[in-house]
Amino acid sequence: MRNRQIFLKPEEIPRQWYNILADIKINPPLGPDGNPLSPDQLAPVFPMNLIEQEVSTKRWIDIPDEVMDVLSIWHPTPLVRAYNLEKALDTPARIYFKNESVSPPGSHKPNTAVPQAYYNKEFGIKKMTTETGAGQWGSALSFACCQYGLECKVFMVRISFDQKPYRKTMMAAWGGNCVPSPSMSTKAGREALELNPDTPGTLGIAISEAIEAAVADESGQTRYSLGSVLNHVMLHQTIIGLEAKRQLEKVSEYPDVIIGCAGGGSNFAGLAFPFAYDKIHGKNVDIYPVEPAGCPTLTQAPFVYDHGDTAKYTPLLPMYSLGHTFVPPPVHSGGLRYHGMAPTVSQLVDEGVFEARSVTQSKSYAAGVLAARTEGIIPAPESCHALALVVEEAQKAKEEGKEKVILFNWSGHGLLDLGAYEAYFSGNIKDIELSQKDLHGSEKVYEDYPKPQHLKSV
Amino acid sequence: MRNRQIFLKPEEIPRQWYNILADIKINPPLGPDGNPLSPDQLAPVFPMNLIEQEVSTKRWIDIPDEVMDVLSIWHPTPLVRAYNLEKALDTPARIYFKNESVSPPGSHKPNTAVPQAYYNKEFGIKKMTTETGAGQWGSALSFACCQYGLECKVFMVRISFDQKPYRKTMMAAWGGNCVPSPSMSTKAGREALELNPDTPGTLGIAISEAIEAAVADESGQTRYSLGSVLNHVMLHQTIIGLEAKRQLEKVSEYPDVIIGCAGGGSNFAGLAFPFAYDKIHGKNVDIYPVEPAGCPTLTQAPFVYDHGDTAKYTPLLPMYSLGHTFVPPPVHSGGLRYHGMAPTVSQLVDEGVFEARSVTQSKSYAAGVLAARTEGIIPAPESCHALALVVEEAQKAKEEGKEKVILFNWSGHGLLDLGAYEAYFSGNIKDIELSQKDLHGSEKVYEDYPKPQHLKSV
Repeated sequence: MRNRQIFLKPEEIPRQWYNILADIKINPPLGPDGNPLSPDQLAPVFPMNLIEQEVSTKRWIDIPDEVMDVLSIWHPTPLVRAYNLEKALDTPARIYFKNESVSPPGSHKPNTAVPQAYYNKEFGIKKMTTETGAGQWGSALSFACCQYGLECKVFMVRISFDQKPYRKTMMAAWGGNCVPSPSMSTKAGREALELNPDTPGTLGIAISEAIEAAVADESGQTRYSLGSVLNHVMLHQTIIGLEAKRQLEKVSEYPDVIIGCAGGGSNFAGLAFPFAYDKIHGKNVDIYPVEPAGCPTLTQAPFVYDHGDTAKYTPLLPMYSLGHTFVPPPVHSGGLRYHGMAPTVSQLVDEGVFEARSVTQSKSYAAGVLAARTEGIIPAPESCHALALVVEEAQKAKEEGKEKVILFNWSGHGLLDLGAYEAYFSGNIKDIELSQKDLHGSEKVYEDYPKPQHLKSV
Repeated sequence: MRNRQIFLKPEEIPRQWYNILADIKINPPLGPDGNPLSPDQLAPVFPMNLIEQEVSTKRWIDIPDEVMDVLSIWHPTPLVRAYNLEKALDTPARIYFKNESVSPPGSHKPNTAVPQAYYNKEFGIKKMTTETGAGQWGSALSFACCQYGLECKVFMVRISFDQKPYRKTMMAAWGGNCVPSPSMSTKAGREALELNPDTPGTLGIAISEAIEAAVADESGQTRYSLGSVLNHVMLHQTIIGLEAKRQLEKVSEYPDVIIGCAGGGSNFAGLAFPFAYDKIHGKNVDIYPVEPAGCPTLTQAPFVYDHGDTAKYTPLLPMYSLGHTFVPPPVHSGGLRYHGMAPTVSQLVDEGVFEARSVTQSKSYAAGVLAARTEGIIPAPESCHALALVVEEAQKAKEEGKEKVILFNWSGHGLLDLGAYEAYFSGNIKDIELSQKDLHGSEKVYEDYPKPQHLKSV
């Protein structure tokens, strides 16, 4: 019998996260005065123990036992050899994927939701607020808060809220309270609705609302949580790549190609960073973040300083950005509709360590259906983007006659996104490709900000 | 760190199914003439290799390599120590569950869908037809047919079809074709609609439609598939209990109490039969099938000969039955809305080896939400019924101060049943308890049939 799933023993689960800031330089976040931000300035938004992680340059950071205990509900996640997909593509490539869909909320997101909830609890916080796009993140934080007895409020981008009514129920099952964004309960929300009462919402607006709701709690017992972009989020996600590395070692493999979809960058970074460490230190491996052609941050936008949210509550972050006012077209992969990108991921794209790619929706759903019919799991629309490039790379390996090892992140399942599949099956998926020309309008918003330096870590 | 999930190594996965017919006697199925059915009479409906399994009394039956290869997409399934649930219930009981929700379709159903599709393929069949209640079984067979390149047509009970529009899309993702039942495409469907154009449908009618559609194919290349009730289905599901036994051995445990929800009986039997073997041979263990109070087959109906479907296409089976014309109230747990029960399970209830219990919907959802908030996974409405009894037994253990070991089957997740949770949260779940008096009308349908003997295996 072929050994399809590669497991780790409980004692082989990584007990430390990998912090890429030990190995690369990034431009510092800037405060409203244009000067580098001090940790204290973040204190109203995040608990200090997480802020310390955010700025840490220590290479290995211990995973607390109380976090590991909750992660062990679904970790170690399987590494799977995609025999059937290989066969369907008739490729000499050996394809492996990390199956992050096995978590209770169905994606990689709880890898960081759980430690974030834990550190907030440790710091004495009672309630967390956040935003969510597709709903994966809001579900994950609801689940995590429930594990530690915290309250959770989620602002969900309206178009996703309407497209996926069951996400709200899922969060409610874990005690979370999910409302559509923009809402009338925050200044940022009211302003967005005034500007455009029919707005589909954006992650940028929802982030503003969630930050405002956290800071406005005068008891000081509420904090905000972000599911992507920030350094500590990328840190927590490295459990994916660290596990994958150990699992590949068990079958004496090392990847030639690494692929993950990228919205804010967290599932991609989680898989890629432990391998990026090797690349920074001389190893030869191709690493591709994949984004939708309808929200092409890394492939079409410039590397600038910009805000992470529409109301400019966040510091200026050094990142590829479509502009904090950018309203992405209503593509179904809600998790990939963000205007910016994690500074750490942006830095490594700017340096050429990662090579960004974009794919259209129809191509990504076609790959997703092929994956469902071969490997069984119905992928999240976000994961379909990674799969589209996997298919392309496997076909390239065939043309070149090369036995490449391709590793990708199956970041989540699509069981709450079947409406998007229904649209695909009935021919109602539109391919939107935005070019630099289309994006000129929103670019202006960061024209007057300082410009990040082109640093060289490698 | 506590060891929450107990895995098996790939080489420890059971390579044979356990056939309980080696250890118990059952009344034979009867043909239209009232005489015991010959295997040949089933040939238009099932392929001969499965009919041979249906009547086999060999104790151990090899799992073919080609079946094991597909099962290995999600097997071995984790056995989980429910530490958090134990803590919430403050019970001295140690609670373990088999997590069957990790399969691509999200339940235990593919454990039999995969071998059934395989044996059909081996026999030269090109297309399979079936019925589905909640949609779990139709999804599982669509998935399985896809793995072996077979066509799949699914008749879905209309009330579930309407309540869960995404089930159809899920089946389509695997290439399955799902239509609501009763449909106009079969005689059985047309008759049911004539009788009551607004019928919510029943599993009994849907089975009739699927059998008719299979037999009507003049090419002889279509066969019918049943997701529960039959002996070979129970056989295939024993992988659950066999794995669980080995996993418990790893932590030196043996259950005092075994619990599974029961509609047609397959997930319950899958977990229970390998332990029933021990009980038959002298071991002391309490084994409880749990059904909804709104469809109380084992707890309120008599042990009789009855048809498995409304149009009386199936043989007469010895089972507890509410009557083949019984239309269960629209309780949400579609998978538990069947009028009959597997003959093997019925036999062991009649003998007193299993002790049937029933629970109301509100009690089962309350237990389901508690389980989601502690163990993370949102249970299928069916699994909530098992959970309700687990909660009761854990509380009893607390009252008695006993360190009992409780094992139950978490047969599936509820991610496609969130509409039912939404109804529960908004107070729209009605508790229906049917008594023997309510059931008198439908009882009459089997009054003229032969009566099964009360056999004694133990």
